[in-house]
Amino acid sequence: MGPLQIKDLLLQAPESQSVTLKGWVRTKRESKNAIFIALNDGSTINNIQAVAQPGQFSPELLLTVTTGSCLKITGRLVESMGAGQNVEVQIEDLHVYGTADVDTYPLQPKKHSLEFLREIAHLRPRTNTFSAILRVRHTLAFAINKYFHDKGFFYLHTPIITASDAEGAGEMFRVTTLDLDKPPRTDEGKINYKEDFFGREANLTVSGQLEGELGAMALSKIYTFGPTFRAENSNTTRHLAEFWMIEPEMAFFELQDNMDLAEDFVKTVITYALENCKDDLNFLQNRLAEEDKNKPQNERSLPLLEKLRFVVDNPFERLTYTEAIEILLQSKPHKEKKFQFPVGWGIDLSSEHERYLVEKHFKKPVILTNYPREIKSFYMKLDDDGKTVRAMDVLFPGIGEIIGGSQREDNYEKLLERVNEVGIDPETIWWYLETRKFGTAPHSGFGLGFERLVLFVTGMTNIRDVIPFPRYPKSAEF
Amino acid sequence: MGPLQIKDLLLQAPESQSVTLKGWVRTKRESKNAIFIALNDGSTINNIQAVAQPGQFSPELLLTVTTGSCLKITGRLVESMGAGQNVEVQIEDLHVYGTADVDTYPLQPKKHSLEFLREIAHLRPRTNTFSAILRVRHTLAFAINKYFHDKGFFYLHTPIITASDAEGAGEMFRVTTLDLDKPPRTDEGKINYKEDFFGREANLTVSGQLEGELGAMALSKIYTFGPTFRAENSNTTRHLAEFWMIEPEMAFFELQDNMDLAEDFVKTVITYALENCKDDLNFLQNRLAEEDKNKPQNERSLPLLEKLRFVVDNPFERLTYTEAIEILLQSKPHKEKKFQFPVGWGIDLSSEHERYLVEKHFKKPVILTNYPREIKSFYMKLDDDGKTVRAMDVLFPGIGEIIGGSQREDNYEKLLERVNEVGIDPETIWWYLETRKFGTAPHSGFGLGFERLVLFVTGMTNIRDVIPFPRYPKSAEF
Repeated sequence: MGPLQIKDLLLQAPESQSVTLKGWVRTKRESKNAIFIALNDGSTINNIQAVAQPGQFSPELLLTVTTGSCLKITGRLVESMGAGQNVEVQIEDLHVYGTADVDTYPLQPKKHSLEFLREIAHLRPRTNTFSAILRVRHTLAFAINKYFHDKGFFYLHTPIITASDAEGAGEMFRVTTLDLDKPPRTDEGKINYKEDFFGREANLTVSGQLEGELGAMALSKIYTFGPTFRAENSNTTRHLAEFWMIEPEMAFFELQDNMDLAEDFVKTVITYALENCKDDLNFLQNRLAEEDKNKPQNERSLPLLEKLRFVVDNPFERLTYTEAIEILLQSKPHKEKKFQFPVGWGIDLSSEHERYLVEKHFKKPVILTNYPREIKSFYMKLDDDGKTVRAMDVLFPGIGEIIGGSQREDNYEKLLERVNEVGIDPETIWWYLETRKFGTAPHSGFGLGFERLVLFVTGMTNIRDVIPFPRYPKSAEF
Repeated sequence: MGPLQIKDLLLQAPESQSVTLKGWVRTKRESKNAIFIALNDGSTINNIQAVAQPGQFSPELLLTVTTGSCLKITGRLVESMGAGQNVEVQIEDLHVYGTADVDTYPLQPKKHSLEFLREIAHLRPRTNTFSAILRVRHTLAFAINKYFHDKGFFYLHTPIITASDAEGAGEMFRVTTLDLDKPPRTDEGKINYKEDFFGREANLTVSGQLEGELGAMALSKIYTFGPTFRAENSNTTRHLAEFWMIEPEMAFFELQDNMDLAEDFVKTVITYALENCKDDLNFLQNRLAEEDKNKPQNERSLPLLEKLRFVVDNPFERLTYTEAIEILLQSKPHKEKKFQFPVGWGIDLSSEHERYLVEKHFKKPVILTNYPREIKSFYMKLDDDGKTVRAMDVLFPGIGEIIGGSQREDNYEKLLERVNEVGIDPETIWWYLETRKFGTAPHSGFGLGFERLVLFVTGMTNIRDVIPFPRYPKSAEF
């Protein structure tokens, strides 16, 4: 079904066989002896070169063959004499499906800024950079599904619309069918959510974890891979209002198993991308190097592939929060008062602290564990000392926290105490509490922000460039 | 990482080797000579039998081993003398992680109605029926990702929050951060959406198709697999407010290719489930047969596996809408005025008509094509006669429409005409229209409701039973 993909065509042996290809013109170049058309169909970063003879086609037809126009070409696959490709197509027949007017088509063959391309997100997948990003993104998504499937995890679709705000992870989007102009009201004059679609207040989920735990307490190992939402009004290169999360939850996993899984998981999926996206990653490595040329030496990144191999090849450094604080207290920037934020046991590590540990001190990914209970979520298992919880954060160079997780509190009384402590009405999560009442077991899980991973693997710097249609304050175009 | 799964343990050769297993008690049975514990960890429908000797453990400990309690068992894997299993575990050590009080744990070993289980959706994955459904659901999801990956499609995450209502597929959920009690208003007194999070009205998506097409016009072959939403107030066994859709979009595919892909796709994923979910499908087949016993003979279903193999083994019947109307006009129920709704060219086929074609006339899946333009969406490609469009609906026995798709209108002028005809403001989908302006090409796609597929493969009858946490009017629990 459908045409031969250019990715596959480029691998064929040139035996003058008849081939038909379909794709979009990247460039057209005319010389005295030939007309060269570089055609791309999005299956690969590489174009195929199609060659016509002068006079073979009418000037009128050739005028419509411009960057962005869509062609069907029939011809012979032959060895290429040009540099940079093994095969090319001698055109026998050429049909233009759709033109792209040179005066109005925005993607002319020149450098476009990422900012400009964000404004034409409907067309940017036609550029080398964004098609490479989307192929890498696909490959990572597939690797994630394959990893968990191979390990006996079940993909669980946790709900997107939720009536519980238990995670308390920040601002939520309201989901409603009420008439905002004239909402129904109770006798007391309050909004009457009983008349809303779900008969109660409903929001977009910030995490599938709580429901994921329900699955793990029945199927042992589950993972979610779905959209999550934050209505935070933050216009940064690291935040989206809508993003995809992967959240595995495992019965019978303690903190150590959780760390082992997180490290093995992230290494395996990055390895899969390294093995299956060679051309795209090479392209993105060059793009990054090109961009870095404008930066001072000390701000330049490692070459992309080197950075990825480094993560894959080295064991992550594992230490407790308490040990990390010790290191920070002994550090040069702390002693020289170069840190913007104070260091001390109990603080929520800030980005500068995490970066110091990962990029300066250990120079590799770090897993920090056993954080103070006060700065972590209610569902994390209390350590025996009563002061820390079995949390773990995986910190990556340049990215910061890429994975956050913990062993979950499996003791009903201790969990209930924490729920009350943080001010959640236990009635609203009766179903979550019941998993600790009936057949409880030690269990763990973590969350990975998918776009953070794609950001890391592609070497891009703005999260709006690694999701097809980014959602952020004042922007829901496309 | 983590314990050995019972699924794998059941395949080991019994050599008195030491094993550790963790899971939940399904049943406990005490005889004079032994205590039998059936343990399940959700990795398989099959339990493993663990055997203790009378007096081996204290009566107090054994009293806490009840249905639903969670255990860690260490013992020897030996050949089983009992019927129904090859191996069993001679218990050496037994630890109870969590009890399940017999008086309050809702899942006692007896038959529970599906209605009751829906009210305890947090626990129902611990039942045989729902764990089987969730494993089949996982397997189908994996098969879908694998199918498209193998065929060179890229998984595209289209947006969940959208400002366009172009699909017009029904009622949408509003997404907002405005204060419903005192929303900001314009000078004219209208709700001021400029102050909303996205600076405009935003909704939950009803389909990723339009954005999917943008991807296909750059990467050639993409698919979406994500949640979609309908705020329809319908309380039926076929509708959910939140459900998952799969939407492939392919450049250079015409209607014929689209049909070929749809048929190959659905057959391949069902075959994958048949090959990889044998135990679960056998269980679900028996469940269905059991349920059918209470029905009159003529309302009983085919055995589940027979029904699935039938779909996989036979070519789908392909005919045009016009031909289907002819058949219906010649049919016995029409002539005997047994159809509730009238038959005639131009009607939107109702369920009884579709069922007649699929279940009575052809007795196999049917692909209907070339529907009247008036009853189909604006984006479908107009046929040369100007009366019909290149739509295709795949109809399944017992399910009705499982796939809906079409070749897309790729002509800018014709598309614009239809957009205006149906009353969409072209400004709101300028980006969609531009794909026809710049490098347009013939292209096609379709949508598959994931839960409809799971319904068909599991033989369940209520769509609320094939998604972990169903969302429907007045219900957003868990």
